[in-house]
Amino acid sequence: MAQRIQGVLSPVVTPFTKDLSPDPGRFVRHCKWLLSHGCSGLAAFGTNSEANSLSVDERMLLLEALVQAGVAPAKLMPGTGCCSLTDSVRLTAHAVKLGCAGVLMLPPFYYKGVPEEGLYRNFAEVIERVGDARLQLYLYHIPPVSQVPITLGLIERLLKAYPAAVAGLKDSSGDWNNTKAVLDAFAKTGFDVFPGSEVFLLQGLRAGAKGCITATGNVNPGPIDHVYRNWNTAQADALQAGITATRGIMQKYPMISALKAAIAHWGRDPDWITVRPPLVELSAEQQRALVTELTAAGFDMPGLAA
Amino acid sequence: MAQRIQGVLSPVVTPFTKDLSPDPGRFVRHCKWLLSHGCSGLAAFGTNSEANSLSVDERMLLLEALVQAGVAPAKLMPGTGCCSLTDSVRLTAHAVKLGCAGVLMLPPFYYKGVPEEGLYRNFAEVIERVGDARLQLYLYHIPPVSQVPITLGLIERLLKAYPAAVAGLKDSSGDWNNTKAVLDAFAKTGFDVFPGSEVFLLQGLRAGAKGCITATGNVNPGPIDHVYRNWNTAQADALQAGITATRGIMQKYPMISALKAAIAHWGRDPDWITVRPPLVELSAEQQRALVTELTAAGFDMPGLAA
Repeated sequence: MAQRIQGVLSPVVTPFTKDLSPDPGRFVRHCKWLLSHGCSGLAAFGTNSEANSLSVDERMLLLEALVQAGVAPAKLMPGTGCCSLTDSVRLTAHAVKLGCAGVLMLPPFYYKGVPEEGLYRNFAEVIERVGDARLQLYLYHIPPVSQVPITLGLIERLLKAYPAAVAGLKDSSGDWNNTKAVLDAFAKTGFDVFPGSEVFLLQGLRAGAKGCITATGNVNPGPIDHVYRNWNTAQADALQAGITATRGIMQKYPMISALKAAIAHWGRDPDWITVRPPLVELSAEQQRALVTELTAAGFDMPGLAA
Repeated sequence: MAQRIQGVLSPVVTPFTKDLSPDPGRFVRHCKWLLSHGCSGLAAFGTNSEANSLSVDERMLLLEALVQAGVAPAKLMPGTGCCSLTDSVRLTAHAVKLGCAGVLMLPPFYYKGVPEEGLYRNFAEVIERVGDARLQLYLYHIPPVSQVPITLGLIERLLKAYPAAVAGLKDSSGDWNNTKAVLDAFAKTGFDVFPGSEVFLLQGLRAGAKGCITATGNVNPGPIDHVYRNWNTAQADALQAGITATRGIMQKYPMISALKAAIAHWGRDPDWITVRPPLVELSAEQQRALVTELTAAGFDMPGLAA
């Protein structure tokens, strides 16, 4: 089996043209910048990618553009979990066929309060239907948004039934106790856990996490990667405090729009602010305030505008 | 403009074969049974249809099968609201092109706590991109599931901008105060309100609603239609009590699975119980208990097994 991705992954924000079409050119450029500035991998088509605001075909075209542009599939962990079983199967099979290192899979998120058995069947059906030994499936636990949790009981059942395919979990619960419980229960058996924010990066690494998959990896990959590479040194806590502070500035705004505003500014490419409905871009005033505060904190995105 | 649908609409449950494929033959038969047993219209591809568990292509194929089988598009109000703008546009344009009387549109439901402006832009973009004067758009308010509400402020903005296209709302909040507020604010201007359960049918009609769009319309369309046609008579309250009691039995179980179990039993077609993950069919024990209680209450689905 190929080496699994470890380190800092970015759920890549998706650029749109002014008419709200996905823009493969800008997407490829941003992905390449991320990989050359600290990201070990790209969790494209995540929550911060507005992936669920795209059609299945739009997602597949963007992924193909990335691979065709020379981005190594071994660096890719695209999101492929949809409400529709057939959509999840189609996206997952496509990603595996392209050679992606893994897929990050949301549970079906329309129905709330569904039984664990139904969620088990969903993931089991995807694994069975894709039917490819290369599949490395990472479960995506993000109850504040999906409202449908990936419980420890579900992980246990899936790992027992599909030990080779079920590779890990992204925990975007924001609840360290949950991350710790998953780590304690499953990390030793080769189940790779990634906190969903760099705020938990150092804490996570000390408890056995393999890195993090974080929104702000889109704009601050270097310093976050620096924590990852120096977690076992005397400077680790100070480095962690730095990236936590940057995250704190970003979190004052709606995250996806703030990420795009930062890229638009430091990349000198104003159209990057565009989001698809139901999201709304930052106002001019919000953009100025964000840039001012980030600049004052010494933030930079080196090489982005080159 | 064609006559708008009024009366009892059913969010038609979607039949699957044992391998979880949509079954157009059973779908057409059930739709025809509904239209000949009390339903004035069919809100196919709603929450109870497991619509979000289907791909866009699967939804389009089922709708085409219905029209090809002779079901009048004037009776159809398919659900077309998706998380992805491009999916919503594609489904809506397809429904309008087929001549459907209207579409019932969920807001994009992945992101929570989105600004009203973002939801406005979503519906406005769909209306603009479809660009067809025949479009009759019904907003779908179902906060217990979507978690994204259609507020009075949003309705007002959309009605002001698109008075010809914005036709009404299905209120599945389960909150009569909200239904009443929408009726009071907009019903007099030709905005058609449908409570999302027959429990509110009589109350709704007395306050200006145009009927109801209800899960249990799938199994109990005759008696619900009887309330609709006799709401202004002395027997109305007694008739309402009858359909409310039947609803009460169904609601003891997960609704979609219970609807399918009733159709499987009274239609003598056991495979109808099949649901797609993340839902789970009723257990054999639950099926027996449901049928026993419904039978004791005098429930029937006349002609279904014919």
